[in-house]
Amino acid sequence: MKDNNCIFCKIANGEIPSRTIEENELFRVVLDVAPATKGHALILPKEHCRNLFDLPEETGAEVMKMAQKIALKMKDKLHCDGVNLVQNNEEPAGQTVFHFHMHVIPRYVDDGQTIGWKPAQLTAEEMDAVAEQLK
Amino acid sequence: MKDNNCIFCKIANGEIPSRTIEENELFRVVLDVAPATKGHALILPKEHCRNLFDLPEETGAEVMKMAQKIALKMKDKLHCDGVNLVQNNEEPAGQTVFHFHMHVIPRYVDDGQTIGWKPAQLTAEEMDAVAEQLK
Repeated sequence: MKDNNCIFCKIANGEIPSRTIEENELFRVVLDVAPATKGHALILPKEHCRNLFDLPEETGAEVMKMAQKIALKMKDKLHCDGVNLVQNNEEPAGQTVFHFHMHVIPRYVDDGQTIGWKPAQLTAEEMDAVAEQLK
Repeated sequence: MKDNNCIFCKIANGEIPSRTIEENELFRVVLDVAPATKGHALILPKEHCRNLFDLPEETGAEVMKMAQKIALKMKDKLHCDGVNLVQNNEEPAGQTVFHFHMHVIPRYVDDGQTIGWKPAQLTAEEMDAVAEQLK
């Protein structure tokens, strides 16, 4: 199903032009217009879903296959030195467009980016408690 | 296949204790010992592979199903406000342990983390050129 108010639906389905680097029945893969690095791509499902929480399980499985294909292509064609996969869900996690997308970011030595986090300060007791909650 | 020198092989196969929150035939999911936030988990395949570049395709598909399961559990049990998936490949991308792992990071409003990047400055011509390379 498509959401007529969703810009990524329009891009995924070709109604808005994009720099498409791969396409199949399920996905369109496009270059991010605000890239972290040269070649930064987005995997967009053609069917609308908001994010990982409502992604059909089988689409998820196919997303990862596509991510691997794109990562290998980046290594082969762009000679990048590494790749990050990043997938953000909901605003507190940095999601800005509410249509599932997986970032595939080629990395180069000295590209000046740091994609990471600072360690949180949790006690062993807090760690044990959260492990219990998630069991 | 296991790599006897790999710490994540030992954790995934239970030879080193961990805070395990989920386990099946293919994966062990553990809390990260240096978490970004409360509940930060790692999906570790039991079979050794270095990263996404040599991950068996079918394992990749199952990783994503597991990531979704864990993300939903975090929302349900931890009442987090979002989730990031991050998966780093090779040192320039921030990989520090060379056994494939997918980070599943619950996010909370005001958790103080920013997992992102600054935009690279690329011209339209550079974007067109890299799109051509990746087609």
